[in-house]
Amino acid sequence: MRLPESYVYLDWAATTPLCQEACDAMAPFLVPGVGNIEFGANANSLHTPGRNAFSAMEDARVRIARAVGAGRPSEVVFTSGATESNNTAILGLVEARVRRERQRGNKGYAPHFITSAIEHDAVLSLLPLLRDRGCEVTVLKPDRGGHVPVAALREALRPETALVSLMWANNEVGSLQDIPALADAAHAGGALFHTDATQAVGKVPVDLRASGVDAASFSSHKVCGPKGVGALYLKTGVACEPLLMGGGQEQGRRSGTQNVAGIVGFAAACEASCAMVAAERGRLQALRDELYARLCDGGRAKPSAVDARDAREASYLPNIVNVLVPGIESETLILQLDLAGFAVSGGSACSTGSLEPSHVLSAMGIARDEALCSLRVSMGRYTTHDDVVRFVEAFRRVVE
Amino acid sequence: MRLPESYVYLDWAATTPLCQEACDAMAPFLVPGVGNIEFGANANSLHTPGRNAFSAMEDARVRIARAVGAGRPSEVVFTSGATESNNTAILGLVEARVRRERQRGNKGYAPHFITSAIEHDAVLSLLPLLRDRGCEVTVLKPDRGGHVPVAALREALRPETALVSLMWANNEVGSLQDIPALADAAHAGGALFHTDATQAVGKVPVDLRASGVDAASFSSHKVCGPKGVGALYLKTGVACEPLLMGGGQEQGRRSGTQNVAGIVGFAAACEASCAMVAAERGRLQALRDELYARLCDGGRAKPSAVDARDAREASYLPNIVNVLVPGIESETLILQLDLAGFAVSGGSACSTGSLEPSHVLSAMGIARDEALCSLRVSMGRYTTHDDVVRFVEAFRRVVE
Repeated sequence: MRLPESYVYLDWAATTPLCQEACDAMAPFLVPGVGNIEFGANANSLHTPGRNAFSAMEDARVRIARAVGAGRPSEVVFTSGATESNNTAILGLVEARVRRERQRGNKGYAPHFITSAIEHDAVLSLLPLLRDRGCEVTVLKPDRGGHVPVAALREALRPETALVSLMWANNEVGSLQDIPALADAAHAGGALFHTDATQAVGKVPVDLRASGVDAASFSSHKVCGPKGVGALYLKTGVACEPLLMGGGQEQGRRSGTQNVAGIVGFAAACEASCAMVAAERGRLQALRDELYARLCDGGRAKPSAVDARDAREASYLPNIVNVLVPGIESETLILQLDLAGFAVSGGSACSTGSLEPSHVLSAMGIARDEALCSLRVSMGRYTTHDDVVRFVEAFRRVVE
Repeated sequence: MRLPESYVYLDWAATTPLCQEACDAMAPFLVPGVGNIEFGANANSLHTPGRNAFSAMEDARVRIARAVGAGRPSEVVFTSGATESNNTAILGLVEARVRRERQRGNKGYAPHFITSAIEHDAVLSLLPLLRDRGCEVTVLKPDRGGHVPVAALREALRPETALVSLMWANNEVGSLQDIPALADAAHAGGALFHTDATQAVGKVPVDLRASGVDAASFSSHKVCGPKGVGALYLKTGVACEPLLMGGGQEQGRRSGTQNVAGIVGFAAACEASCAMVAAERGRLQALRDELYARLCDGGRAKPSAVDARDAREASYLPNIVNVLVPGIESETLILQLDLAGFAVSGGSACSTGSLEPSHVLSAMGIARDEALCSLRVSMGRYTTHDDVVRFVEAFRRVVE
């Protein structure tokens, strides 16, 4: 169905439109016909077009490494997206630890994994598999604001903890974790630290080396790049068993012919998004705070996350608003707002169609009937003040 | 480095240029800026742009299902490419059998897996992992022509064989297996049958339902579609544990936000390639046979695959020529031909840089020093008779 000219997209946490930078970067790779091969060859081929593709890919790796503060380009492994990056990191880092312990003669070693109850499904859905493979799992509870206390992590660590995985920024409520402190705590306990930074990259400053993490996942389509491509940051020296195996691409860490066009578009988008963080963060924060104030004005809605430390600048993403609208179920509200010309969501797009309330809101202690009435409004570089004003008007009409 | 106008690409088995059909189909998804969201939303979102993306994806699924003869569109699972499809099928089908046997109380069940020595690395690299997980593995030897005898499969089957995986068409020498007969034999032995059809789709007629296979892998970038997208055919009723886990996309069989632009390009390319098979097969076969005759004329080279049944029409791909050039190592020959303006390869692009001879040629009984002198010339829809004539001239100059 065609969208009216006036339609406003406010679901940037689900996915983002492609930016001009990504389109421009991909254009030479998307020429139709035999001329395409100038850049469109297999990056592992020995001939000139193969080497052209390889150069483009390695240039993209350098640019992404720089944008997110990786110490070296070789620390960036290209994947098909954040789900694959998360799956690879968690299964692969735990498996590598098991292998190391076995090689040291520690045959009785049973690994332990720590995560939180507000992670993305690409992390939480691995728990039954990890348990099947003999890994013990601890799931930390967040506070009412969606933050995982560092003290809770410290208490949960054990000598056999192989890995801690805690997301940098939550995709539903936008809570930011204190990643350097959490990574420090994990290291003090002898564990590695992985973070799902998918929602953080391009929204808040992300300096992977300075943060102290050993591994991080992020995705192209959340930073205005194409879908189907992402990255796994693996700090030099950190062993991780591959999830996809075959031709040994990406230095054996991820097999499969690389999607060079997508990688090049990802790099352009990631670079542009990260360069804009300083300017965009303040602008989006102002829109976010205006939205919270106006949506909640008169008791129509209330913020989902309530934090004693309510310094929203420091502890929440600038671009996500999550409110509860008592008495109106998410699905009804989303469809009504869509008819009114606004795209929003109830929570993660990955859980659309579920009859259960969001696991994130539930973990934060929100009762089932309230959690079923959540509304997530998420913004990005093309969102204007006018969009926000018009959205608030539509929201009021729909709710009343 | 820019390619000269006259440069000829003869490495279509490594990857293919994008076709006009794929570019046209993807164009609406690659518009830059906020207008992109009309089709560029997350296909799992509830709002209108999300439903637009979902419709486009489901239309692509219908078209691919029809092109390859799947019984139902839901049998097509979108992945990031053939490596992921192969990994998912093999690990997932074996795992599902183990789970079923355990549920039936057969706690001592140890699965058995059969494959061949000429499979792609995306299959063979899984063998150590399968063995680690308690799976026994039998690797069938091909004959001197690169064909796996059905009798060899029959002998290898055991009551505990969970899965047989044999590729439809070999990526180095082009040998085609008798898939219906092999699938029948596997079923008669109580095993499931998977085929890596990556090189077959769009080159020879592929009717998945008629072939009797339970699962098949194929890829977009081998049929003039974009890189980074592929499919796994899973016949209705066949249980397969997922490899990528998370949001439960693709009916829980493959999680991760779908690459809708790539999927739509894949569908257009797959449809066009499959529709052309009838016309292209004869044309390419004539070029292939001319190449074999002229490259081998005067003893400069000899065909790598030698088959008693030497009906090349029926038992080899129409677009791959693989010869041995005694005394000239592949790498030298490829670089010289590249300088002369032709892209060719020594074998799989995935094994570039390896100092070992091709595992395919070795398995076929070719001695190490000969196998190191292999040359693969592979063609496609933009390859002309003039390209072939000019290539033969360049080859003669380089060899002499």
